[in-house]
Amino acid sequence: MHNEPPYSGRFDGTLHLFAVRVYFEDTDAGGVVYHANYLRFMERARSDMLRVAGIDQRAALDGGDGVYVVADVAIKYHRSAKLDDELLVVSEVRKIGAASCVIHQRVMRGDAMVTDAMVTAAFVGPDGRPRRQPRDWTEIFERLKGAAQ
Amino acid sequence: MHNEPPYSGRFDGTLHLFAVRVYFEDTDAGGVVYHANYLRFMERARSDMLRVAGIDQRAALDGGDGVYVVADVAIKYHRSAKLDDELLVVSEVRKIGAASCVIHQRVMRGDAMVTDAMVTAAFVGPDGRPRRQPRDWTEIFERLKGAAQ
Amino acid sequence: MHNEPPYSGRFDGTLHLFAVRVYFEDTDAGGVVYHANYLRFMERARSDMLRVAGIDQRAALDGGDGVYVVADVAIKYHRSAKLDDELLVVSEVRKIGAASCVIHQRVMRGDAMVTDAMVTAAFVGPDGRPRRQPRDWTEIFERLKGAAQ
Amino acid sequence: MHNEPPYSGRFDGTLHLFAVRVYFEDTDAGGVVYHANYLRFMERARSDMLRVAGIDQRAALDGGDGVYVVADVAIKYHRSAKLDDELLVVSEVRKIGAASCVIHQRVMRGDAMVTDAMVTAAFVGPDGRPRRQPRDWTEIFERLKGAAQ
Repeated sequence: MHNEPPYSGRFDGTLHLFAVRVYFEDTDAGGVVYHANYLRFMERARSDMLRVAGIDQRAALDGGDGVYVVADVAIKYHRSAKLDDELLVVSEVRKIGAASCVIHQRVMRGDAMVTDAMVTAAFVGPDGRPRRQPRDWTEIFERLKGAAQ
Repeated sequence: MHNEPPYSGRFDGTLHLFAVRVYFEDTDAGGVVYHANYLRFMERARSDMLRVAGIDQRAALDGGDGVYVVADVAIKYHRSAKLDDELLVVSEVRKIGAASCVIHQRVMRGDAMVTDAMVTAAFVGPDGRPRRQPRDWTEIFERLKGAAQ
Repeated sequence: MHNEPPYSGRFDGTLHLFAVRVYFEDTDAGGVVYHANYLRFMERARSDMLRVAGIDQRAALDGGDGVYVVADVAIKYHRSAKLDDELLVVSEVRKIGAASCVIHQRVMRGDAMVTDAMVTAAFVGPDGRPRRQPRDWTEIFERLKGAAQ
Repeated sequence: MHNEPPYSGRFDGTLHLFAVRVYFEDTDAGGVVYHANYLRFMERARSDMLRVAGIDQRAALDGGDGVYVVADVAIKYHRSAKLDDELLVVSEVRKIGAASCVIHQRVMRGDAMVTDAMVTAAFVGPDGRPRRQPRDWTEIFERLKGAAQ
């Protein structure tokens, strides 16, 4: 058995950094990353941001407590990205509600912004209805919250 | 050889209707349609709306004229959808620019709105820069344009 | 509310025919359908073959009876398919076991075979272990079974 | 600008190791990784195995030399994998032809094999026809070739 843990990105202050390489699966016949796939990159980055910060989503899901679902996304596509490009997803918590949080995510290639999105995630119970987030999670989010608006 | 053409939806006035069934590939471990996959449903519906209206995107792509790329999406998730659900993507042109158009798309399950999005598509040349849409396409869009705002 | 049921393909004797159009989401930067996406086309076709034949997988899943999982796939890629191509997935039951069935699936573009696969699906219980298929399902498969080997 | 290069796995002798975490995008309503998505994991691992070994596929694609396409896959699913699982794709070159190579890939979770596949990749020119691989690539493959059969 080999010991090779998956990549999870890292924090730089309040920013979570998550590098992504563009593979064939991510591209389309226009030769660029298919627009919906940026949402997949962003979800990976958010999942790992929470994990690295100490929030265990799978335990909450398995324990019947609840799960984050995406409630709202406003995404802008500024540039295209191509096969083999090295991208960086930069994520930052912007707002924390009782049952939701807002995260801003930018996909960068070097200094150029490829796309950016404001993502609202809502915490819902097993019945699919909004539910107050665990208190220690809210505290984690408060610590992570960036100053920018 | 069998004669069985693919489904393309149909117009009902200015609305394009495109039915989608939810398969395993569309769902995630939360038991519902994965949020990014609604953008795939919507892209299928937009492609077929244009096709049925007489706009040949592949010829434009192959001829080096240009292609539509998604520039901006604002999407709201109102309800979840499950395996085997029968959904309907209802699309309508809202605004036409020189090099872009705005389409409103709703994903319905019966009378219930599952998600809806305002999608801005930009026409770009082979160099990736904005380019004026073919004039006859603009005329088609003008005919399709809904009255709603 | 609009009445527009999703497309499910149809039987022609023992063959289930399911038409698919190639959208941007299906392609990659090579300009062709991404190889893993043929498995998605085939899964859609299998799901609808079962549905049209009278097998209700969602009821079995929701009722805790079990679900089909893919156990084995041998797939050959003969030709590539491009954006906007009209494809036809032709599926046929080949073998029926106590807890599994083998389905042959071809993806055709007119008379040309694009890809074909032999897919073994195993029926498993909620515990993930092989389980005998419902008897009336086996009877349905027996009726559907093609003569070809 | 942040310096955070994407993960590419590493070689351990002739084996290329590539760790993957399971995200929501990879799973389906059965609560496990969707079967077609293992082909995506394997493609990422193959791409990075070639990259780390010194083969620049994008330069070959951009230069009009050719590209690898998947010609044949035989994949077996032994166990299921769940959200958040830490998987390892272990890849090894098995056979080298004039215009193709065969790679064996296993997806492991600890000591347990989740799935494994024998993948034949063919090198094709811009016309889509088989073409002899660059000679220095063949030499790289020869060095990478495992002893196992």
